[in-house]
Amino acid sequence: MANTFKTPIDAAELTARLIRCPSVTPVEGGALVLLQDLLESAGFDCTRVDRGKVSNLYARWGAKGAARIFGFNGHTDVVPVGDEAAWTVDPFGAEIKDGILWGRGATDMKSGVAAFAAAAVDFVTQTPPDGAVVLAITGDEEAEAVDGTTALLDWMNEQGEAMSVCLVGEPTCPNEMGEMMKIGRRGSMTAFFTVKGVQGHSAYPHRANNPIPALARLVDRMSSHELDRGTDHFDPSTLAVVTFDTGNPATNVIPAQCKAAVNIRFNDAHSSASLTDWLRAEADKIATEFGVTVDMTIKVTGESFLTPPGALSDLVSAAVQAETGVTPVLSTSGGTSDARFVQHHCPVVEFGLVGKTMHQVDENVPIDQIHQLKSIYSRILRDYFA
Amino acid sequence: MANTFKTPIDAAELTARLIRCPSVTPVEGGALVLLQDLLESAGFDCTRVDRGKVSNLYARWGAKGAARIFGFNGHTDVVPVGDEAAWTVDPFGAEIKDGILWGRGATDMKSGVAAFAAAAVDFVTQTPPDGAVVLAITGDEEAEAVDGTTALLDWMNEQGEAMSVCLVGEPTCPNEMGEMMKIGRRGSMTAFFTVKGVQGHSAYPHRANNPIPALARLVDRMSSHELDRGTDHFDPSTLAVVTFDTGNPATNVIPAQCKAAVNIRFNDAHSSASLTDWLRAEADKIATEFGVTVDMTIKVTGESFLTPPGALSDLVSAAVQAETGVTPVLSTSGGTSDARFVQHHCPVVEFGLVGKTMHQVDENVPIDQIHQLKSIYSRILRDYFA
Ligand SMILES: [Zn+2]
Ligand SMILES: [Zn+2]
Repeated sequence: MANTFKTPIDAAELTARLIRCPSVTPVEGGALVLLQDLLESAGFDCTRVDRGKVSNLYARWGAKGAARIFGFNGHTDVVPVGDEAAWTVDPFGAEIKDGILWGRGATDMKSGVAAFAAAAVDFVTQTPPDGAVVLAITGDEEAEAVDGTTALLDWMNEQGEAMSVCLVGEPTCPNEMGEMMKIGRRGSMTAFFTVKGVQGHSAYPHRANNPIPALARLVDRMSSHELDRGTDHFDPSTLAVVTFDTGNPATNVIPAQCKAAVNIRFNDAHSSASLTDWLRAEADKIATEFGVTVDMTIKVTGESFLTPPGALSDLVSAAVQAETGVTPVLSTSGGTSDARFVQHHCPVVEFGLVGKTMHQVDENVPIDQIHQLKSIYSRILRDYFA
Repeated sequence: MANTFKTPIDAAELTARLIRCPSVTPVEGGALVLLQDLLESAGFDCTRVDRGKVSNLYARWGAKGAARIFGFNGHTDVVPVGDEAAWTVDPFGAEIKDGILWGRGATDMKSGVAAFAAAAVDFVTQTPPDGAVVLAITGDEEAEAVDGTTALLDWMNEQGEAMSVCLVGEPTCPNEMGEMMKIGRRGSMTAFFTVKGVQGHSAYPHRANNPIPALARLVDRMSSHELDRGTDHFDPSTLAVVTFDTGNPATNVIPAQCKAAVNIRFNDAHSSASLTDWLRAEADKIATEFGVTVDMTIKVTGESFLTPPGALSDLVSAAVQAETGVTPVLSTSGGTSDARFVQHHCPVVEFGLVGKTMHQVDENVPIDQIHQLKSIYSRILRDYFA
């Protein structure tokens, strides 16, 4: 099947075509192939930057060494369908009912990718700018994300490819179109604790050393600790004990060890290193108090980052205001996104549509919202290169 | 195979024959059949009191309504062999090497049963007493114990069978023959807690209600609480948190619930009812503090009991002293035993040999110790009916 495209690109139609590609991470599903066809037909220089099991697409219009290069980043992979029986539509059918487009990825974020691809194609075709436009699109944002946007950025560094600024098209609005953009994200890390004591019979606890009360107190202390009260641009950091396990089926046996895991979402008052030091100190106190050993391993998903309010956020904010009448809040809330990788490369902010149904059954998006999002991205491009 | 017995009964030889019966709970394995043969040949009135999967043997010499009835209680079932490859002998071979008899049940407690059966047969045969001697032998002490000694006592109540006093022949000496007898046991109960909160994403803990910190604090409080400092005849009660489980594999999810179990070994300062009240109060406090629900279920294995020092313990103590030169300590230490059931029927104490190798690989008993134990039991019978 040859794809034919004519400008202006219909972003809603493109979203529907992307939804029909069953691109559950890490399956490419035809989504990147479709986008590459579109972008190449508009004069974009396209490179597939696949790594491991992940497919990624890099597309540039204009000169590699241009003084001003506007970048978009997004993902075509989607989370699994989940309970398929609970869906009232075909998750990959891209059905349209009463102006609503239904399907997995409708909000997160095939609509976002379609909107910025359509905006970019129209822009370079109709009003070729003095500069370059880059689209860095990954097939793995939803899973491990180790061979996704990171692979694109690694490859860009090797090739001397660059973006001056970058807009990530993830859904950012909680309820109403235009109400929020993101200028940073909290960091995320997980600490895994294993407490080892001495096994024994529960009738003779003095001959054993039970690790459970030690870990329970550590959990209580960590949970009760106030990490901070928020910073200029961030909410307070949070700590959640996500599991505590022993697996001992015998009520007459004191177990030798138990485990817990703690997830921390931290703002710019901390780093994973400073939090690791604090956790280690708490663990050491418990080890001394109870005479147990406390092993700790740390997995850092991302450091916190902030693109301070300035030229880039002003640009995006003005475009959103002009198209929707709403001035977006500059937020740093929510989980992690690939912006945590992009921030090492250039200033980055995030703006997209309403994310209410993302990752849920019957994920859907109003058609109007896709068109509005494309208008906002188009205006951002015009204003950036004006 | 017809069994032939001649008095005096060789208790070591009887122990060996019992070891060769592979009576791992609830398998009878020929052990009760062998004992019934022996006892009937000596004029005992025998009844098999089987219930559920469990075989039990009741044997009485003398009149049912006698004024003085001395009872013995014990079990012929044994715990599983475990790691058979780790044994240096056949666990059911009853091998004798250098005066040591080897095999599963050598100490716990085929030797004890053999010693009191041999003592009882010799006694009633050689010096028929004015009274009755009862042997209540169960095939399930090591497992659930719901159809074991309990079934025998239920049946005795129905039939109007009685014991004036009872001696349980479990191993009671930690290291040296004669050093300890038991005049009571701590009670044992287990509390199972389930804490329910509200599931959520670990990036938004304020929208969830994490049950883990609530249960951790409950565990810390219970573990830190001093139940008592011991009573006249008991060590301090102990509490051991034996497990704490969540089973949440996702570090970005706050779980909806978690569970813990707590085993309490309690002395006569408490009852399972008073401890249940205390646990419920602690659970309710946590529920209020954290806004979670705390479900609690209680399993009582046995209440604490005490046969206060007096005629029965004096009788046993004097016999031990006379035969071994050692005065036994009157203890209430250790786990539970079937004495917790017998105590509802009549005064009960426990005395047996050294239990060091019980439940272990290469369980074994010195032949001399079996003969010594029989001598002690014989002297107890003589003195009781004197
Ligand atoms: Zn997304
Ligand atoms: Zn036993």
